[in-house]
Amino acid sequence: MKGKVYLVGAGPGAPDLLTVRAARLLGEADVVLHDALVHPATLALAARAEKVAVGKRCGRQSSAQRFINKRLVDAARRHRFVVRLKGGDPMLFGRAQEEIAALEKAGIAYEVIPGVTAASAAAADLGVSLTQRGAARSVAFVTPRVGEGEAPSGWARAAAAADTAVLYMAAGDAARVRDALLEAGVARDMPVALVESASLEDSGAVTGMLAHLEALCATRGAGPAVILVGRVLDAAVLSRPEAAELARAVAAMKR
Amino acid sequence: MKGKVYLVGAGPGAPDLLTVRAARLLGEADVVLHDALVHPATLALAARAEKVAVGKRCGRQSSAQRFINKRLVDAARRHRFVVRLKGGDPMLFGRAQEEIAALEKAGIAYEVIPGVTAASAAAADLGVSLTQRGAARSVAFVTPRVGEGEAPSGWARAAAAADTAVLYMAAGDAARVRDALLEAGVARDMPVALVESASLEDSGAVTGMLAHLEALCATRGAGPAVILVGRVLDAAVLSRPEAAELARAVAAMKR
Repeated sequence: MKGKVYLVGAGPGAPDLLTVRAARLLGEADVVLHDALVHPATLALAARAEKVAVGKRCGRQSSAQRFINKRLVDAARRHRFVVRLKGGDPMLFGRAQEEIAALEKAGIAYEVIPGVTAASAAAADLGVSLTQRGAARSVAFVTPRVGEGEAPSGWARAAAAADTAVLYMAAGDAARVRDALLEAGVARDMPVALVESASLEDSGAVTGMLAHLEALCATRGAGPAVILVGRVLDAAVLSRPEAAELARAVAAMKR
Repeated sequence: MKGKVYLVGAGPGAPDLLTVRAARLLGEADVVLHDALVHPATLALAARAEKVAVGKRCGRQSSAQRFINKRLVDAARRHRFVVRLKGGDPMLFGRAQEEIAALEKAGIAYEVIPGVTAASAAAADLGVSLTQRGAARSVAFVTPRVGEGEAPSGWARAAAAADTAVLYMAAGDAARVRDALLEAGVARDMPVALVESASLEDSGAVTGMLAHLEALCATRGAGPAVILVGRVLDAAVLSRPEAAELARAVAAMKR
């Protein structure tokens, strides 16, 4: 028997920000292989499915991905209806291509169901358009994270060239990220925002300038976070009282 | 009376690719102000609401936006529960900031509900990750479209600096887009894809190289389209038979 695999985006976090199609597919699934960060209420939609946590939080080695690929192919050989549930959108920083390649090699049918990515949820939480007319006609989604044996990427140059940038999997490495952006030509006083757990009950945002990035990221808790960079944040930074306080914290760090 | 306005992303086109929250809000709405391209089945979810088409297809002048802003504020003064339904994600090329500014000025509460953007749906249709490991650690969403009186933007530079680029509102201007990307340093043989009506029944994709862009875009129908550019498309271009045919068409155009 060969089942079909649905690579499904679970959205940014809040269980009701997954798509209607994703909710329906979860309800029909025989088995769900899911990332670590998927909300329990989202998984509960897969009422009759066997649920298998396969995610990797970020930073684990590539052997973990090969193991996931194998689990996925095995599941499709044992079940008719398989959902691979990924945080956010599968095609943005989701390593979907490796899973698709494994499925194609095994001759297993698949379909990709797009989801809401964290950048959209962070922008919604902040009330800031990523492509505000007059300020931004381009937005780059980048990650400073490269795998073992991968060439260093031009992520900072891509972020600097776009009017707005959203950095994924970057908040744990704030000093290096700040330095790379400065070196790529982003101004020290460029507005930035750290948005943690976008769309969730305990979501939070702190804003400041690029020079503050390390202090901003030091405030973060255990939730997933994105960093936004760009002039579209000007109003958001000015309207938030913590900017001045953080500037003082940064100054203190330098003494 | 002052109502609350929900700026809601309708997703990329297919009615079941809007979020569960968006579906619920539409069901509760007193009035829905919607873009032209929203699917009739999506609007049907707003069973008890007055529905007002306010969208602008692209290319209309900014006075239309001011009129929408005014309609939105007026609706919130007359109704408790107002949904402003926008194609895709409100914070990506949706002109949400102008509507948010109008609401804030009028002291009207609002909330933004993110949606699935066209780039994610196009990537899902193609089975191509926008940020495939080893090939892409950055993706830029850009538009070559600038408003009246706006400064020319560095969209082509931003697209060229990212490993992958997705161009919104660009397919109608293929020759200019191709020339700008070539001038920004993108190779003539860079893989490109034109995806029309992503996620919808009548969706279609053609792929080729940047040099083919004009011929690719000449094949398009009346649906909304995005252009994808980048090495992540390598496999997709090779696997599609029309590439060679289009290359011949481009050669013929040049004779």
